[in-house]
Amino acid sequence: MQAVHFDIQAVGNTWLTHIQQRIDEKTKPLGSLGELEGLAARLAQIQTQTLDGVAAGRISIVRPTMLVFAADHGIAGHPISIAPQTVTEQMVRNFLAGGAAINCFCQANEMALMVIDAGMISPVCSDHPLLLTRRVNAGTDDFSQHAAMTAAQCQQALRYGADVARDQISAGSNVLGFGEMGIGNTSSASAVLALLENIAVDRVVGRGTGINDDQLQLKRELIHQAVQRIRSMHPEVTADIAMQEAGGFEIVQMVGAMLAAAEQRVTILVDGFIVSVAALLACRMAPNCRDYLVFCHQSAESAHGLTLQALNARPLLSLGLRLGEGTGAALALPLLRAAAAFYNDMATFASAGVEV
Amino acid sequence: MQAVHFDIQAVGNTWLTHIQQRIDEKTKPLGSLGELEGLAARLAQIQTQTLDGVAAGRISIVRPTMLVFAADHGIAGHPISIAPQTVTEQMVRNFLAGGAAINCFCQANEMALMVIDAGMISPVCSDHPLLLTRRVNAGTDDFSQHAAMTAAQCQQALRYGADVARDQISAGSNVLGFGEMGIGNTSSASAVLALLENIAVDRVVGRGTGINDDQLQLKRELIHQAVQRIRSMHPEVTADIAMQEAGGFEIVQMVGAMLAAAEQRVTILVDGFIVSVAALLACRMAPNCRDYLVFCHQSAESAHGLTLQALNARPLLSLGLRLGEGTGAALALPLLRAAAAFYNDMATFASAGVEV
Repeated sequence: MQAVHFDIQAVGNTWLTHIQQRIDEKTKPLGSLGELEGLAARLAQIQTQTLDGVAAGRISIVRPTMLVFAADHGIAGHPISIAPQTVTEQMVRNFLAGGAAINCFCQANEMALMVIDAGMISPVCSDHPLLLTRRVNAGTDDFSQHAAMTAAQCQQALRYGADVARDQISAGSNVLGFGEMGIGNTSSASAVLALLENIAVDRVVGRGTGINDDQLQLKRELIHQAVQRIRSMHPEVTADIAMQEAGGFEIVQMVGAMLAAAEQRVTILVDGFIVSVAALLACRMAPNCRDYLVFCHQSAESAHGLTLQALNARPLLSLGLRLGEGTGAALALPLLRAAAAFYNDMATFASAGVEV
Repeated sequence: MQAVHFDIQAVGNTWLTHIQQRIDEKTKPLGSLGELEGLAARLAQIQTQTLDGVAAGRISIVRPTMLVFAADHGIAGHPISIAPQTVTEQMVRNFLAGGAAINCFCQANEMALMVIDAGMISPVCSDHPLLLTRRVNAGTDDFSQHAAMTAAQCQQALRYGADVARDQISAGSNVLGFGEMGIGNTSSASAVLALLENIAVDRVVGRGTGINDDQLQLKRELIHQAVQRIRSMHPEVTADIAMQEAGGFEIVQMVGAMLAAAEQRVTILVDGFIVSVAALLACRMAPNCRDYLVFCHQSAESAHGLTLQALNARPLLSLGLRLGEGTGAALALPLLRAAAAFYNDMATFASAGVEV
């Protein structure tokens, strides 16, 4: 089977001087809008490909859409989560009923929401306007024992994810947020991080949403076992190997969706730990993907800091969230709108008659 | 003349257990919404005064309004700012024309904006829908030499500020944001902070929006001189003395407006350093005022950290802004809306059929 391929351009620095000049002419001391200035410059770099475009100063945030990818994990058969595996399905039903935190935040911030069944144990329903059914399988295998998925399943997941993103982009979205739901997926993300970055397992395994000492100990042992198994088979662990051996269907679909979004110069909002690991995988597969990522929230999961370090990223928010679902990304959307507003509409020293 | 008096109730902990229980029943791991949970609890405490009110779970954000108080400062006659004193007026004209950062952020976040001439050197115009003219005088006196204002002017400024807040509350606002404009007002705020908290001048004087070494040195000397003068006259420096001796008309009007807002159980959004010093003054005058303050942004000005410490406050955002105008407060408003959304509308474990 042909591996999925993505052709991603770097955003390029051709217009960066002009973009920066536009920002510096605004009626404010140089640099005084802090991180919003870098955010505006990045959005302009992503969206502007002509000098006229820079001069017109139109950053647009159109039909921003949160994609919440859900799947189950074989490793969740072990008691390493605060919630039973059935909660993946229950929470997806909650998303579809509009009752979860991510529903509230998307509603508050005027963001569309789509939920993708990327491979839950059971399908939740056949027909719901918020649900896309892109099931690779009924959950992954237990990666502490075997590969989480086959190479074919991994490619299928990448393709499904890419198609999900492309469909939303075709419908008009130029900003896509990423969130996830899947009991056990912090284990998967921790293993992928340990494999890609060669970090000791103890440093990448945390309490997720809040497990106790015994659960933490078991989680560490299982992941340690998995990492040893995988490293013994693969002297060099590529992104493909890490995904197939220790990934989850929601994680791999996010990777595919991110790569497809970057390919079409769409801005990607990265949520917490799990989504950041998907972003790390995407950047390993296509380093230019990094240019399209906006990191939204520094989660309380300590491994998230290591992931961000690997990506040289500093998120916009740090609110102590540890929920996932894309909540941190949805909360950051207004900052993108604010960055666009000042970049597009703020007066210059010359136009406002303010002395420099 | 009778001193202005404010009667501010503590928010009270009567319903806090019920409020916390409401938050804990939501479909999320305990505490997993981080600082948004504390924010929601605080908003509920401010707005809910019956058990039925808690049960109904209605936090409301109605007609949120940013109040930008502008004034001039006698101390700005010395070369201690990056911009000439005329920039206060030029920027106020920019606010009224809709061209400043605060205009863009208020627009992006659906927040109303009012600009108050609290005592600029010259009145800017007689009739503009965004402008309130509440001039105490044409700028303060140079507080490195004399008291910034008379006791009567200080009381007048408190009254003007209180009336500004009350008018907005009468018009329906239950959230008021605070911002400021006034070349030289970081000097005033630094002096007030040094006086109230007994902090060495060198620790409270920073570069404001970006002054050079010579300007910084002069700024320190002038403030040091002022603090020595004031301390030699007043063995104990109360809030009233600090305001009158080293305040600014915009700072004192903000104090009056905050106290009037707290009196009517209105939520107060605190921006950066200058606004935080106004908040510190308000809390010294009426400690219960603290209950109504939401700290929005940790600014890059190092003295801001000391002010927040004195108020035991941790802001929601840290974006490296150093502009003032209320920009940090306007950017935080969507977080209040998100906190209200989850508190009001998120499903419970029981209602959603999710296992705890």
